[in-house]
Amino acid sequence: MSSYLGVGVSPGNVPVYHSTNVNVLDRRIKITELVLRCVILGLGVLAAVLVGTDSQVKEFFSFQKEAKFTDMKSLVFLVVANGLASGYSLIQGLRCIISMIRGRVLFSKPLAWAIFSGDQVMAYVTVATVVAAGQSGVIARVGQPELQWMKICNMYGKFCNQVGEGIASAFVASLSMVVLSCISAFSLFRLYGGNKTKNVLVG
Amino acid sequence: MSSYLGVGVSPGNVPVYHSTNVNVLDRRIKITELVLRCVILGLGVLAAVLVGTDSQVKEFFSFQKEAKFTDMKSLVFLVVANGLASGYSLIQGLRCIISMIRGRVLFSKPLAWAIFSGDQVMAYVTVATVVAAGQSGVIARVGQPELQWMKICNMYGKFCNQVGEGIASAFVASLSMVVLSCISAFSLFRLYGGNKTKNVLVG
Repeated sequence: MSSYLGVGVSPGNVPVYHSTNVNVLDRRIKITELVLRCVILGLGVLAAVLVGTDSQVKEFFSFQKEAKFTDMKSLVFLVVANGLASGYSLIQGLRCIISMIRGRVLFSKPLAWAIFSGDQVMAYVTVATVVAAGQSGVIARVGQPELQWMKICNMYGKFCNQVGEGIASAFVASLSMVVLSCISAFSLFRLYGGNKTKNVLVG
Repeated sequence: MSSYLGVGVSPGNVPVYHSTNVNVLDRRIKITELVLRCVILGLGVLAAVLVGTDSQVKEFFSFQKEAKFTDMKSLVFLVVANGLASGYSLIQGLRCIISMIRGRVLFSKPLAWAIFSGDQVMAYVTVATVVAAGQSGVIARVGQPELQWMKICNMYGKFCNQVGEGIASAFVASLSMVVLSCISAFSLFRLYGGNKTKNVLVG
């Protein structure tokens, strides 16, 4: 497993990079990645279920009206984005587990590019949808009196609270996605660290 | 200028990294970075001015009402975020020019971390504010009839159009910021490319 670094390190050379340190770092990154992917999977499903199953029926004098998440476009996007993020995290988490079992370190640039691109897209998509839903949620809670948009949360209290919980869990999921996108950027771009050759050849 | 790579490359070694290629790549990255920072500076100021100076007075039967960007919280955030992004891009652009004149390549990890962190934060902040403003803008344009939020753009047409232009230019600025954050991630994390030693030492 550690042979990928030990190849050329003859005893006479000054060991600039200790293979054990690198392995420890790689292991920690892999574990952090796996934990974050599980967090996103769990919170993404939670957010989608909380918002997607939310509804409240309110009786007015002569008729009744139901509040559903489909009344607000941004909540539909939130549910879709969190469903996507969960499925994506499931696939990536499985890949993570397989590479941990096989003890492989990521050296393939195309694969690293694919993971990096996917993570970047998912990070911005989850952040964007949670912000849009949060923006609608704030208007729903406090209203926008200058524009005659009334707050509706005093009418649909239970509905609003459950949406709020969904947005909160989607928010944590999107933060995890942002951290993950930094990790995958690290995993990709360190493959391009050609300039370090100076240190090695001097020794 | 190119001596930083030439230090230990004796003629007997297989040159794994051609210093000229690296220099060309570094130059291209620097120029792309500078162009993007200028784009963000220009578009950020444009967006802030377009939205911040926008107003329209509408006369109703007995009174008159003025639409201002401060009526919508998300537009205030948009103006502030684009002002911040412009100032930030100005400072970073100057740093870019100075390092190009001096012909230096970024090797300092603390500086690279600072640039990376700043770019990441600005990327997510600009994306978040443009999404929030876009969300409010969509509600203002098409309304949300289920919640009794009326569209207001038929009343304040000129105001809405100018806000739309501002959001569009902020959107392009935020996309540039996203690309920049990838570039600064590359500049930072390639400094951690220790695993490449294998290739060098084998030769």
